[in-house]
Amino acid sequence: MSEKFDAVDVIRAKRDKQPLAPEQIDWVIDAYTRGVVAEEQMSALAMAILLNGMSRDEISRWTAAMIASGERMDFGSLSRPTADKHSTGGVGDKITLPLAPLVAVYGVAVPQLSGRGLGHTGGTLDKLESVPGWQASLSNEAMMRQLDDVGAVICAAGSGLAPADKKLYALRDVTGTVEAIPLIASSIMSKKIAEGTGSLVLDVKVGSGAFMKSTADARELARTMVDLGTDAGVTTVALLTDMSTPLGLTAGNALEVQESIDVLAGGGPADVVELTVTLAREMLAAAGKSDVDPAEALRDGRAMDVWRRMIAAQGGDVDAPLPVATEHEVITADESGVLQRLDALAVGVAAWRLGAGRARKEDPVQAGAGVVIHAKPGERVTAGQPLLTLHTDTPERFARAEEALQGSWTIGESVADTTPLVIDRIA
Amino acid sequence: MSEKFDAVDVIRAKRDKQPLAPEQIDWVIDAYTRGVVAEEQMSALAMAILLNGMSRDEISRWTAAMIASGERMDFGSLSRPTADKHSTGGVGDKITLPLAPLVAVYGVAVPQLSGRGLGHTGGTLDKLESVPGWQASLSNEAMMRQLDDVGAVICAAGSGLAPADKKLYALRDVTGTVEAIPLIASSIMSKKIAEGTGSLVLDVKVGSGAFMKSTADARELARTMVDLGTDAGVTTVALLTDMSTPLGLTAGNALEVQESIDVLAGGGPADVVELTVTLAREMLAAAGKSDVDPAEALRDGRAMDVWRRMIAAQGGDVDAPLPVATEHEVITADESGVLQRLDALAVGVAAWRLGAGRARKEDPVQAGAGVVIHAKPGERVTAGQPLLTLHTDTPERFARAEEALQGSWTIGESVADTTPLVIDRIA
Repeated sequence: MSEKFDAVDVIRAKRDKQPLAPEQIDWVIDAYTRGVVAEEQMSALAMAILLNGMSRDEISRWTAAMIASGERMDFGSLSRPTADKHSTGGVGDKITLPLAPLVAVYGVAVPQLSGRGLGHTGGTLDKLESVPGWQASLSNEAMMRQLDDVGAVICAAGSGLAPADKKLYALRDVTGTVEAIPLIASSIMSKKIAEGTGSLVLDVKVGSGAFMKSTADARELARTMVDLGTDAGVTTVALLTDMSTPLGLTAGNALEVQESIDVLAGGGPADVVELTVTLAREMLAAAGKSDVDPAEALRDGRAMDVWRRMIAAQGGDVDAPLPVATEHEVITADESGVLQRLDALAVGVAAWRLGAGRARKEDPVQAGAGVVIHAKPGERVTAGQPLLTLHTDTPERFARAEEALQGSWTIGESVADTTPLVIDRIA
Repeated sequence: MSEKFDAVDVIRAKRDKQPLAPEQIDWVIDAYTRGVVAEEQMSALAMAILLNGMSRDEISRWTAAMIASGERMDFGSLSRPTADKHSTGGVGDKITLPLAPLVAVYGVAVPQLSGRGLGHTGGTLDKLESVPGWQASLSNEAMMRQLDDVGAVICAAGSGLAPADKKLYALRDVTGTVEAIPLIASSIMSKKIAEGTGSLVLDVKVGSGAFMKSTADARELARTMVDLGTDAGVTTVALLTDMSTPLGLTAGNALEVQESIDVLAGGGPADVVELTVTLAREMLAAAGKSDVDPAEALRDGRAMDVWRRMIAAQGGDVDAPLPVATEHEVITADESGVLQRLDALAVGVAAWRLGAGRARKEDPVQAGAGVVIHAKPGERVTAGQPLLTLHTDTPERFARAEEALQGSWTIGESVADTTPLVIDRIA
């Protein structure tokens, strides 16, 4: 079969800072999916995009081409509006767990197609798999049924959505081309748009524990994704939220499920509650329900009811005890004063090394492993008091986790200069 | 086996404009040769190098690492000094053919390891293969023997020299990363240095028919290669020469051999004679013989004697007639006046399409195909007089060759504004 374009011409155009024509973009994504554009050609193009950028029109077309590479879901047959949330990933970010059932309380369906963790950021599916019996994989029919019955589903994304993105993501990971904002934005948005949600709230993390280390980069990514959603007819809002310190008091799998249950029971750490309620409010507003206060459904147990039904619908035993790691080790404060800083990346790497995360896709994770935080920045601590507890089933991991935590906190006299949790809102 | 570096870290460093450490360069070239660094990783790195550049130290190290990937030749056992020439490629560039025997006349050995043509520039081996019986491949022993006996050899480069370059060159060709000056320079110089010559003269072409279209780029390439040669202990000089119009009056295989023989017989086009003598003088000076006038050996037949022995030593029948194409077509001048311009690229593409060149490495070439030029820029022409004659064995090729020549010349009233043949000298 004769091809419409030559991959080298497309690469050269971007290399020489010329805009890619819409037909070139459609062709290169399609031909890459078919294997006609080789991996080494796509990686050269990805590097040229990383270094020379893409315009809004190019990114929109690129995203549309990635969506067109696979199937699209359609929630049009549901009786309720749908809202989806995506977080760019952070340490201790268990927000999806309380958020999905909370939003469903108000008659908005939440189809939350999630992934597994890689590196220092945990994955929602890994966390939920620590609930005995819970199954991540659902057929499309089972998913629709659960959305109709329960109103919320958190499950693995099917492989049929945006296969071009799947292939490109794996390539970027080994070729130093992950950090291209146009490619990050189109990767996230192609999947979210293909999932067919009516509205989308993006939680763009910024800080040491996030993918985006600077507010400027995070804002550019947020702006790019909001534009992409808007161009595709999806009501899209982004919040820039702080990830310089872990979210909540836990980083791990079962540890984070337990903290989520605490929030659903009306308790839990203030920052997790605040972010859950803020995101729920955004999702509800985007779905046309701005007259409700989602904080209520956390207090009165309605969110917990949906959680229990949501977990049970996927085989999870909601009354079974969560797994607990066999070994633990306490790290204490070395002096007295105000905890001024507790670094998100260090805690994320420590939890990962304790067994909560994986270095390669094939690796298993430990359900009970992770870090429990006993003091958050701004709090006063006393020399010798527990600061962190490390959990693992494999005690030989303690040493490397401690190494990751070296220099990860600061105790001083002055009050900590803390960043607000929600830094900005982009719509 | 555990690797010293991670390819992604090396790619990221260059992507983020950090210099590569010497050990990183050594590793990445070695690991690429071993297949540990994947093609898609090397292409991303090549694109980052193309867009972000390399310092002189990085290019030197990169070149040394490519040399170290294979074997090195050594002409130390020869009784005479060696000099080599490399042209970056142009249209009608047959200079190697008269040049190698001419320099050998003066007791300097010329080991000219050459390649085949690809695209619109012809290859020295393709040209010589139009001589009945001539063989391009020689063992190292046969080559040394011929250098001792005859003083000049033009043959195919063995595959053992700089295998990393061979692999990288094929990759760059399909990934839009050919046009990176550090990579072009290190590719040429790694092979030339591995060949073990004592001195090297570079003919860096500039103009439409050359790889480098601008004098600035050509000068940067020349400067980079001279630095690399110097850093490796090889006396290296570069000439920047004009390639806006074809060299001589022929572009093709047997056609260019015949023109070379004309030059060796003391005749031939003035520009071919001028460049042959200029380059011979540079090669002789670089090898320590600056007190001779190479024009003499063209006039008195000594260069022709060496040519006949050189061709015969590789099985060529010097007295057999050269192949002639079966079909020809004459293109005439459309008006009278001064020929102001005859575009090198257009003539090169026409010769290629007539069958003198190949689109893919595996394609055969026609010995007799090509273009004969009847007037050069600066000459006065009359409407209806022959301007070009096209030669091929396959007349269906005429149409596409004519298409390539559309608009390729200008006839006007004023005298042409011609570029000097030798634009600059860099040492």
